[in-house]
Amino acid sequence: MTKGEETRSAVLGEAIAQASVVGLRGVTIGTLATKAGLSKSGLFAHFRSKESLQLGILEEAITRFIALVIAPSLKEARGKPRVAALLGAWKRWARSEFMPGGCIFVSAIAEIDDLEPAVRARLVEAQLDWLDTLAQAIRIAQDEGHFRKDLDATQMALEVLSLAYGHHLLGRLLRLSGPGSSERTRAPRRTSLSPAEIEARLDRAITRLFRDAQPRDAR
Amino acid sequence: MTKGEETRSAVLGEAIAQASVVGLRGVTIGTLATKAGLSKSGLFAHFRSKESLQLGILEEAITRFIALVIAPSLKEARGKPRVAALLGAWKRWARSEFMPGGCIFVSAIAEIDDLEPAVRARLVEAQLDWLDTLAQAIRIAQDEGHFRKDLDATQMALEVLSLAYGHHLLGRLLRLSGPGSSERTRAPRRTSLSPAEIEARLDRAITRLFRDAQPRDAR
Repeated sequence: MTKGEETRSAVLGEAIAQASVVGLRGVTIGTLATKAGLSKSGLFAHFRSKESLQLGILEEAITRFIALVIAPSLKEARGKPRVAALLGAWKRWARSEFMPGGCIFVSAIAEIDDLEPAVRARLVEAQLDWLDTLAQAIRIAQDEGHFRKDLDATQMALEVLSLAYGHHLLGRLLRLSGPGSSERTRAPRRTSLSPAEIEARLDRAITRLFRDAQPRDAR
Repeated sequence: MTKGEETRSAVLGEAIAQASVVGLRGVTIGTLATKAGLSKSGLFAHFRSKESLQLGILEEAITRFIALVIAPSLKEARGKPRVAALLGAWKRWARSEFMPGGCIFVSAIAEIDDLEPAVRARLVEAQLDWLDTLAQAIRIAQDEGHFRKDLDATQMALEVLSLAYGHHLLGRLLRLSGPGSSERTRAPRRTSLSPAEIEARLDRAITRLFRDAQPRDAR
């Protein structure tokens, strides 16, 4: 890597951390310069516009996602093991230390109407790729006889991803209702869950989906 | 309503519409004044700070949520009809015309780390109330014999809400992959769904959850 590439990569790492907390839109060349200890004009040399900064962050996040979630899972055995590997890798991804606010894509989807058009198009494309990868892994599991032939792979991929994203959102919310939160929020409730419980419940929901997906004679 | 209350209510309606697109954080007294055709100083008389503006928007959204989702459903028969009514009302809520960007709470949860502390606490409280209401309706359905006694009501409430929020997020994303989107995003894919299909798939997932929740002899 040249010095310029190294700086760009370090800055994008910091930007991903910020975007996971405040969204892509919340990361500005100003706040990023302060955090990265660079001058605003120095940063402008790397990212000439808000759109180019958001695209740079998104592209770096996609590169990491492919390296950390997709690539290792594609080495797993075809069928159910690969589907499980994809979901396991996604769960590790969503609690990566480099994203303190959680999955950057979930945050970005929530603000999608307010993103620059090119950024929005790239995000949609990347998420469709992810959904396709999951659906394709499920189709292979059907071919291998691990999942029922009459299963709608797109439906199952969408359902699994909805559960994962939904739990991720609700987990962010519920961890704020634990110790250290306000009196009012800590009022006694029947529904009070720790982040670990949320994750255990997501696991249970996915296990049930997997069990339901198996051919009837294998259950 | 006094003239002051009327203005406040009209401004909050506009603010909810904006927040559903850009998040609570994205609504500022400046942008709101322009849209509502009021002076910034006039608006300051109603909302003295960013925190008080965000709290005002959130409180108005909670009031509407209770009026449109909770209250009518509590009039439905105890048991499964009431659970179904809550979910049906939520789906109508999430596509209300007054929230062009979708459910304001889903957007707000995604930006939760970046909200003012009092706003965050109020959002957490309101969402815990909603989760409790759903779980309670499920417990009543268990008492009525509509759902199995050994069902974990909190688990089911969390799962249904995750599915709903996850589909809502992915629906916002996927509707951008239809006609009018960029060439690259429209590239042929196996996973391509219209918003109506997304909603039909959410319905199917919830129907399955309901069926699985029934006592075995009732299936």
